[in-house]
Amino acid sequence: MFITFEGIDGSGKSTQARRLAEALRGLGQDVVLTREPGGSPGAEEIRRLVLEGPPDRWSAETEILLFTAARRDHMERTILPALTAGRIVISDRFADSTRMYQGLSRGDLRATVDRLHDLMIGREPDLTFLIDIDPATGLARAKGRNGHEERFEDMGLDMQRRMRAGFLALARENASRFRVIDGARAPDEVAAEVLTLARAALLSR
Amino acid sequence: MFITFEGIDGSGKSTQARRLAEALRGLGQDVVLTREPGGSPGAEEIRRLVLEGPPDRWSAETEILLFTAARRDHMERTILPALTAGRIVISDRFADSTRMYQGLSRGDLRATVDRLHDLMIGREPDLTFLIDIDPATGLARAKGRNGHEERFEDMGLDMQRRMRAGFLALARENASRFRVIDGARAPDEVAAEVLTLARAALLSR
Repeated sequence: MFITFEGIDGSGKSTQARRLAEALRGLGQDVVLTREPGGSPGAEEIRRLVLEGPPDRWSAETEILLFTAARRDHMERTILPALTAGRIVISDRFADSTRMYQGLSRGDLRATVDRLHDLMIGREPDLTFLIDIDPATGLARAKGRNGHEERFEDMGLDMQRRMRAGFLALARENASRFRVIDGARAPDEVAAEVLTLARAALLSR
Repeated sequence: MFITFEGIDGSGKSTQARRLAEALRGLGQDVVLTREPGGSPGAEEIRRLVLEGPPDRWSAETEILLFTAARRDHMERTILPALTAGRIVISDRFADSTRMYQGLSRGDLRATVDRLHDLMIGREPDLTFLIDIDPATGLARAKGRNGHEERFEDMGLDMQRRMRAGFLALARENASRFRVIDGARAPDEVAAEVLTLARAALLSR
């Protein structure tokens, strides 16, 4: 089973991805916890190209190609081998992030993102948790972190608002694989709901 | 005018690209000499990812995405601004190299290369010089060079033969922009023919 976590910066999705991995391992499941961009040695090298440096380092089109290259490597080297071996794969971000971050940054690129995904990736997750949070809260949390991977965290509140609306619309369009989770609650409460929904999905397969 | 040089490793195309740039500059033309993969600061960083390291570092599909990302950056930052300013652009390799190296390395990828090119690049050169050489001669020349950009130069004589045949077929399919040049002659002789053909193409525009 291939599970992804999506949401705007500061939503808490990375924490929740890690907590679900720990909880499922505690139940005896064999879990691979991974992330995008990255998740394989080659994809982590591409990650440095896309996340570091000034905001205008790459155009949105070049970014889409780099993210898709990283995703292809991640799929080939990490995700598909683990799924084939019967393991559960949990990824912090996947293709939905590209649909939002690059597809929404300019109005005309969403169709390009989808066509590129169909051509070079093809596969969707079995289950996607959208950790939904108020954009101002998310931005404040994200700004509190240090680091040099800040190309996308400089986008500001307007962009965070568009991303949140975009993610919620995507969840409605793909309701069978999406679960929208209220991320404003205490992390323990969020983790408990995520675990319940993940176990239900695992049992129904 | 956008001119490219193509050919198998050791064909002498880089030398000929440089010589044509020098000759046209000597005639008072404003020329940008560039190369792929690379040709812009971002694309040169991607070049290091694709040309260095072990042969199995990337799959052919990931390579195609990385080459296309580098090409998109090269187009946006170097080629199109120069063409818009009325300059002549000469590139040592361009999309035809991806059609051959990645498109031919596995039989089923040529269509993918073309679809990706149509989606993310779109543009073809106005004039392409294919410097044609006997594969054994080319391989001996290429092996004589030092360096760590050797991921594709380890491919061997069989692959060089397939590449040469592939380039010649591509030239036949795109006869209006291709000029096939016998690269077995002395460099001066090759350069003189290339210059004559380039001037004819410039005058006919």
